[in-house]
Amino acid sequence: MANEFAVFSGRTNPELAEAIARELGLELGNIKLEGFANGEVYARFKESVRGKHVFLIQSVACGGLQEEIDVNDSLMELLIMVDAAKRASADKITAVISHFGYSRQDKKSAAREPITAKLVANLLTAAGIDSIIAVDLHQGQIQGFFDQPVNHLTALPIFANYFEQKHLQNICIVSPDVGRAKAAKKLSDIMDADLAIMAKSRPAHNVAEVSQVIGEVKGKVCILNDDMIDTAGSICAGAQALADAGAAEIYACATHGLLSGPAYERLENSVIKEVVVTDTVRVAPERLTGKIRVATIAPLLAQAIHNVAVGESVSELFDPDFQL
Amino acid sequence: MANEFAVFSGRTNPELAEAIARELGLELGNIKLEGFANGEVYARFKESVRGKHVFLIQSVACGGLQEEIDVNDSLMELLIMVDAAKRASADKITAVISHFGYSRQDKKSAAREPITAKLVANLLTAAGIDSIIAVDLHQGQIQGFFDQPVNHLTALPIFANYFEQKHLQNICIVSPDVGRAKAAKKLSDIMDADLAIMAKSRPAHNVAEVSQVIGEVKGKVCILNDDMIDTAGSICAGAQALADAGAAEIYACATHGLLSGPAYERLENSVIKEVVVTDTVRVAPERLTGKIRVATIAPLLAQAIHNVAVGESVSELFDPDFQL
Amino acid sequence: MANEFAVFSGRTNPELAEAIARELGLELGNIKLEGFANGEVYARFKESVRGKHVFLIQSVACGGLQEEIDVNDSLMELLIMVDAAKRASADKITAVISHFGYSRQDKKSAAREPITAKLVANLLTAAGIDSIIAVDLHQGQIQGFFDQPVNHLTALPIFANYFEQKHLQNICIVSPDVGRAKAAKKLSDIMDADLAIMAKSRPAHNVAEVSQVIGEVKGKVCILNDDMIDTAGSICAGAQALADAGAAEIYACATHGLLSGPAYERLENSVIKEVVVTDTVRVAPERLTGKIRVATIAPLLAQAIHNVAVGESVSELFDPDFQL
Amino acid sequence: MANEFAVFSGRTNPELAEAIARELGLELGNIKLEGFANGEVYARFKESVRGKHVFLIQSVACGGLQEEIDVNDSLMELLIMVDAAKRASADKITAVISHFGYSRQDKKSAAREPITAKLVANLLTAAGIDSIIAVDLHQGQIQGFFDQPVNHLTALPIFANYFEQKHLQNICIVSPDVGRAKAAKKLSDIMDADLAIMAKSRPAHNVAEVSQVIGEVKGKVCILNDDMIDTAGSICAGAQALADAGAAEIYACATHGLLSGPAYERLENSVIKEVVVTDTVRVAPERLTGKIRVATIAPLLAQAIHNVAVGESVSELFDPDFQL
Amino acid sequence: MANEFAVFSGRTNPELAEAIARELGLELGNIKLEGFANGEVYARFKESVRGKHVFLIQSVACGGLQEEIDVNDSLMELLIMVDAAKRASADKITAVISHFGYSRQDKKSAAREPITAKLVANLLTAAGIDSIIAVDLHQGQIQGFFDQPVNHLTALPIFANYFEQKHLQNICIVSPDVGRAKAAKKLSDIMDADLAIMAKSRPAHNVAEVSQVIGEVKGKVCILNDDMIDTAGSICAGAQALADAGAAEIYACATHGLLSGPAYERLENSVIKEVVVTDTVRVAPERLTGKIRVATIAPLLAQAIHNVAVGESVSELFDPDFQL
Amino acid sequence: MANEFAVFSGRTNPELAEAIARELGLELGNIKLEGFANGEVYARFKESVRGKHVFLIQSVACGGLQEEIDVNDSLMELLIMVDAAKRASADKITAVISHFGYSRQDKKSAAREPITAKLVANLLTAAGIDSIIAVDLHQGQIQGFFDQPVNHLTALPIFANYFEQKHLQNICIVSPDVGRAKAAKKLSDIMDADLAIMAKSRPAHNVAEVSQVIGEVKGKVCILNDDMIDTAGSICAGAQALADAGAAEIYACATHGLLSGPAYERLENSVIKEVVVTDTVRVAPERLTGKIRVATIAPLLAQAIHNVAVGESVSELFDPDFQL
Repeated sequence: MANEFAVFSGRTNPELAEAIARELGLELGNIKLEGFANGEVYARFKESVRGKHVFLIQSVACGGLQEEIDVNDSLMELLIMVDAAKRASADKITAVISHFGYSRQDKKSAAREPITAKLVANLLTAAGIDSIIAVDLHQGQIQGFFDQPVNHLTALPIFANYFEQKHLQNICIVSPDVGRAKAAKKLSDIMDADLAIMAKSRPAHNVAEVSQVIGEVKGKVCILNDDMIDTAGSICAGAQALADAGAAEIYACATHGLLSGPAYERLENSVIKEVVVTDTVRVAPERLTGKIRVATIAPLLAQAIHNVAVGESVSELFDPDFQL
Repeated sequence: MANEFAVFSGRTNPELAEAIARELGLELGNIKLEGFANGEVYARFKESVRGKHVFLIQSVACGGLQEEIDVNDSLMELLIMVDAAKRASADKITAVISHFGYSRQDKKSAAREPITAKLVANLLTAAGIDSIIAVDLHQGQIQGFFDQPVNHLTALPIFANYFEQKHLQNICIVSPDVGRAKAAKKLSDIMDADLAIMAKSRPAHNVAEVSQVIGEVKGKVCILNDDMIDTAGSICAGAQALADAGAAEIYACATHGLLSGPAYERLENSVIKEVVVTDTVRVAPERLTGKIRVATIAPLLAQAIHNVAVGESVSELFDPDFQL
Repeated sequence: MANEFAVFSGRTNPELAEAIARELGLELGNIKLEGFANGEVYARFKESVRGKHVFLIQSVACGGLQEEIDVNDSLMELLIMVDAAKRASADKITAVISHFGYSRQDKKSAAREPITAKLVANLLTAAGIDSIIAVDLHQGQIQGFFDQPVNHLTALPIFANYFEQKHLQNICIVSPDVGRAKAAKKLSDIMDADLAIMAKSRPAHNVAEVSQVIGEVKGKVCILNDDMIDTAGSICAGAQALADAGAAEIYACATHGLLSGPAYERLENSVIKEVVVTDTVRVAPERLTGKIRVATIAPLLAQAIHNVAVGESVSELFDPDFQL
Repeated sequence: MANEFAVFSGRTNPELAEAIARELGLELGNIKLEGFANGEVYARFKESVRGKHVFLIQSVACGGLQEEIDVNDSLMELLIMVDAAKRASADKITAVISHFGYSRQDKKSAAREPITAKLVANLLTAAGIDSIIAVDLHQGQIQGFFDQPVNHLTALPIFANYFEQKHLQNICIVSPDVGRAKAAKKLSDIMDADLAIMAKSRPAHNVAEVSQVIGEVKGKVCILNDDMIDTAGSICAGAQALADAGAAEIYACATHGLLSGPAYERLENSVIKEVVVTDTVRVAPERLTGKIRVATIAPLLAQAIHNVAVGESVSELFDPDFQL
Repeated sequence: MANEFAVFSGRTNPELAEAIARELGLELGNIKLEGFANGEVYARFKESVRGKHVFLIQSVACGGLQEEIDVNDSLMELLIMVDAAKRASADKITAVISHFGYSRQDKKSAAREPITAKLVANLLTAAGIDSIIAVDLHQGQIQGFFDQPVNHLTALPIFANYFEQKHLQNICIVSPDVGRAKAAKKLSDIMDADLAIMAKSRPAHNVAEVSQVIGEVKGKVCILNDDMIDTAGSICAGAQALADAGAAEIYACATHGLLSGPAYERLENSVIKEVVVTDTVRVAPERLTGKIRVATIAPLLAQAIHNVAVGESVSELFDPDFQL
Repeated sequence: MANEFAVFSGRTNPELAEAIARELGLELGNIKLEGFANGEVYARFKESVRGKHVFLIQSVACGGLQEEIDVNDSLMELLIMVDAAKRASADKITAVISHFGYSRQDKKSAAREPITAKLVANLLTAAGIDSIIAVDLHQGQIQGFFDQPVNHLTALPIFANYFEQKHLQNICIVSPDVGRAKAAKKLSDIMDADLAIMAKSRPAHNVAEVSQVIGEVKGKVCILNDDMIDTAGSICAGAQALADAGAAEIYACATHGLLSGPAYERLENSVIKEVVVTDTVRVAPERLTGKIRVATIAPLLAQAIHNVAVGESVSELFDPDFQL
């Protein structure tokens, strides 16, 4: 009883969309997307979507083939694609959001702040989405920001698999922050490894914040795990603290490699041996030197799109919040 | 420019509502609430609320003077009060939810589960609330389940104050779970204490889960902190693990003392020396023997109601997610 | 073009759901439902509902195999099942509400009351239902509390059939209340019987209310008809007034046998010869002694579910408001 | 804390609006209303409504000074006024709907019918009303078609007062229909009179429906009470049946005198001695010959508007569903 | 994957609906529509629509076989049909609005006016439509008043075709108003003709407005094009101004022939040689004397219904705003 | 009865906000706005807005003191400010949108396009605005994209005033496009000047589009008027066509000076003598050489904010669609 479906891509992460299409064994749908001189985005579906289940792949992050698209451009482009699909009588619209920008602003950390992750959910709803496919949301609670179904996937097994192929011994998974301890715990369970958690604290007033290691890391191969690496400041500081605490070797992995501003330089100069991210956020190929490795999320997203499209269960695919 | 306001209470936690009213120096409004023989709840405001800002105090939990009200009764009673106030032309309706039932079901932990905390938010919205006052929500992200303003308060300073009066030394705040590490971290910051985090794990397949302590607790005065104590199973197991790890003394504190089923017995039989909860959930006075202490949240809620009513800022009152 | 469908049951009236499933020749779907120690309800679909039309059977009333579920528990359980089905990508969700709790509070009878039946409709809408199947709503206007389609069924032909098999003569259908006269009129039309209507009034101030009989009942076989019997107070008082007015024999029938509090005792001690209810509300088998008979609604509900599922017209099934 | 308010009238029943304004001691607001040649209605507020509480008086019925406005014109004119007030930044909009057209279509009486009364409620909501003042709705449940506050008034005390001034003896209030028995019961309670109820039935197939009288009316002064008199067919047939049953004298009263088509002629030719209606629907002065009397509802509506505007309780004003 | 569909007609323009049905090769669905004596509209689908895609054809304008239906009646009839279809479990509802009444009130032209075209869109949305088929909306922006898909068709090619068959030479398309210049421009492009635009202005204060011709029309065959002709005042004045400016011959065409009030007389007495309208608005056959010609829109609407029903693209059918 | 109000500015056009604040005689409110390294916008109100009417000034266009903000950044920043104000319990939120980005995409010009102006309206609504102040929207119909009040202002009198001070003679206002003719007509009426309209057409297939002048411009002082100048391509081509048609002198004016890409160069190289824009869009001071003049809109916006805040009528301020 499933409808015909079609998959279209925004301009932020075209390589990921191409890889997903290859996995699915189909062509990406034909859509015209361009920027006007004044920065407004223009979209037009160049093929009929009437009555179809339309999947719109977008990374709500900086990207684009010339790195010319910022996170707000990506989001607006996605919203505009949704509006166009809705008015063109698409039967269902699923946003495949490989990276959900603004997900870190998911609660108030100070008075009179917005909850921007909820705002983004409200904007997607106002535009007209029917369901979501997302990867390693900053918190699983973001699913509850929607009343539409959210199919939530995780890259943790991809990282487990990556490191298992290295045959490392005496591994300790390390959360760089108390707030991220749950995912690190999950990875440690998958890999049957130890767990340590870092907490930032100030030894005294007017003294710089330091990363304190809770748990034992001495002589261990530490794998720092986070959902995203943005400017890489805190993961590099964390790695240094691990080194100071006697860690034998330090790796890092994170689903979303935003790698903004000083990130590349910091990582290269850090004590981290290797950093693994996925392609939920576009990493320009010319930057892929040095320590950074990219593991692709495309097969996982392709499988999820396929299952949603034909009405098969997505829940066997790992959800990061599912209890083992 | 603030409207006249009036404060009414549901039947779940009448002592708390009375205490709040005393703090505010006013009388609780006159409302008739009763159960029909078939269990349906009946509500009627016995005084005009037209044009007023109405505050409805309810603990969405088990309670009632005869302990005859369960969590679903409490929720329906609150929703019915909101419906009645709306149809009686109240100008604004603020739900003062001292304990937000169903808040633990705030994300999917398995396939095809509900997100019940979001459902409750949707039900409150459908009934007609304009804003919320809540205390130590299971996760700060629950604020984002609403599009109305949520004034979020924390009992952490109350606990800090309670323990400071004991002049304990060498304190370590312990999170009983990796998922609760952030609040424990915050309490450790307020009290300038050490931090340890517990993680449940299985040493081998078909072996019972054990609580592992991450961080150093040997010889320390440990204070376990959680947002709620329900059946007390995990906090007692955690306390035992701390004892096994050499903790000198073990206290526990939690904002919401649900104390369901075997909780009283477990706590009495545990290695915990003293357990402090607040009155966000009604604790029957006759049960208050032994190790359990109740610190009242009433002054904090009264202050919040006052500030919301007269249009003063609530943000100076502690929000558990605000960064120190 | 109809979707695959699946039928699941809440815990309030499992025997009815089983009977419906037998009529449909299918198995009830696999769903886990349980209560936490603190009274919160937990639900999880144990089989995929993605893309399916899901029917959720619940009696919003007291029930449960141990009579442990009250009306608010039933309602919350239904709402939670709806939320879970929606988030699990069910295509359509139809709530099969054999008894619609709170339906008597369908208008204001005093100032500043809620309209709880509308509130319940709003809650079901907020949770995400797409349509409703209901039986003998307290007033047909409750259909208008929804903007989704409501398939409204009546048990009146079941009662007509039941009494026709007794070959009674000189029958008078009696409404126990002026507000219920329309349904009694309809039953009298189906059975080609006389009609009488009772009205409560006070002969003088400070004198107890008495049931006055409007119409002629002397020497007749009276069948009192109501939509529900709750504490049985008014139906027993009505029966006594009929006896006082010279009725030859008195029967009673009502779609929803809530039978709360003193109902069993009152009915046994009354002048009523036999009371017929349906199984829209669970009647514990051990209580089924004495005068109470249960006629099953299961074939009617099974037929309605089938027709809704496959897209056949439901309107040939009796609607209580349809004009003969 | 009440806002400034202003009262405007549609064109259906201008005399009623003027009478209300006189009672309130204020001038009707200046609004331009006219029809284009193609029948479209044009509205424009000729004075500022920014920040004000705007009351819009309209009888959703046929009317107009030249009887040129039909029920659909009245409704659209009201909706257009609401739209204009909303866009002109009115703070609150209350629709004062003296007659709520389409209220009889409040449930389905046959398969695949609309519930037009709910549709009208939805249209008013879509246009932007904040609350409603209405008079003797066909059923009290219509209040539940709205989620905004509905202030529901009744003309029953006006009729009680009217007939008490006649010093009639041995009065029996008669409901012309089983479905209207509740209001007749209420009037009989107010006037301390007897009650009878009429039911339409067919003695045999292919025989015309006859009005059967339930209750004793012989030798009594009968007052038929209905919520509205439309073509007067059923009230005249009812009156004849009362006469046939030996009634001494027959009066009729109804809140809404629609008096469509053959109504005037039928009433004049009937056995009814006098018919009292209110001015919720405009009755052209030139038609007011013969048996028809008009009792004005203006003081009641003026009082309700005043109380809503200044935030006083409306509930002391009679609501037809309130229990005595 | 398309659902079964069915087409029903309101009473405003039955000949158009019949013509569309003939084009589609199907029978119009069976629906009962009638007016009560008090002017309320009654609707009932006489065949099942459960699970079907229902197309409801209505001209929101004056019409009816006895010209007894005004624009508000037409609109309410359509809204009531939508409500009935929704409650009868139709799967999708598409309103085929051949003439969209109130479309001229699409922005504020004075303070405190409504935007009635948006109100109508809101009312249709509140009633429950899923999509729209419309013809030559007063402005293309009206599509944006909806969030449902709007399939927008134009009669311009029909007019182009009509005039091409006359083999006229030296044609100038004339917009009677600066605000309509875009459509005239489009017709001039289709027909490869010249373009002139009229502007109303006042030579001096207190002097009547005159129509000024911008562009050269001397000796040309002028075809005035407008979206609708209502009272024909401005098109006749425009024609006169063209004649005064030396136009050789003057034709007029307009999609919607409202032809209200003095329109017939004015057109007959004007310098216009021939006026072509379509049947989006019913023109009574007996009025079709003299200069007025009707070109049918039925094949275009039939094609659009077919394509929407079976999921084919509608965009090849002309949209008036599409750029050539 | 007006609430206290406060005015805050986004970062796109800070000079305009400062000028408005000076006109109002108040300080801009204290708000923290900044971009994270990954491009996400962060906002926090640094003063309480509880219970206040909050005005948020933003130009939804490119801008910023370093010209670092694009149109999507501006829009997201505004939406985030709205979300924060709503969650901080602001009583009302008015967006003061000096330039409404995406307003040109206000209808479909090709199949399967979005209507982005409506999308933006939907996004603002989803974020939580209560009303809008806007300047010279691309079409007045955009007001109808909102259901909140839109206060629509025009810069036309500012331009009229500007050119009147030049004491030009024999003026002809020229619309560069048939779609913009209405505003040019309005300016010609204000200035009592002639009117000409340009239309683009193709003399033959495969020949470049040319601007054709409709109306007489020979020897006249032509003032081209448009709502915005983006890349200046069409206004420069139009000016050249006017020059070719013998215009004596050519000026241009437009409310919104987007001046994207080649705009500056084109204008400098064009036959236009002087170009006047307002400051609804930020024009970097260093670019203000040559022919471009900026007339400020600040007093008009300040007046509108004042009137909305204190509840005075805004309609005396010119609305571009109001008829003279």
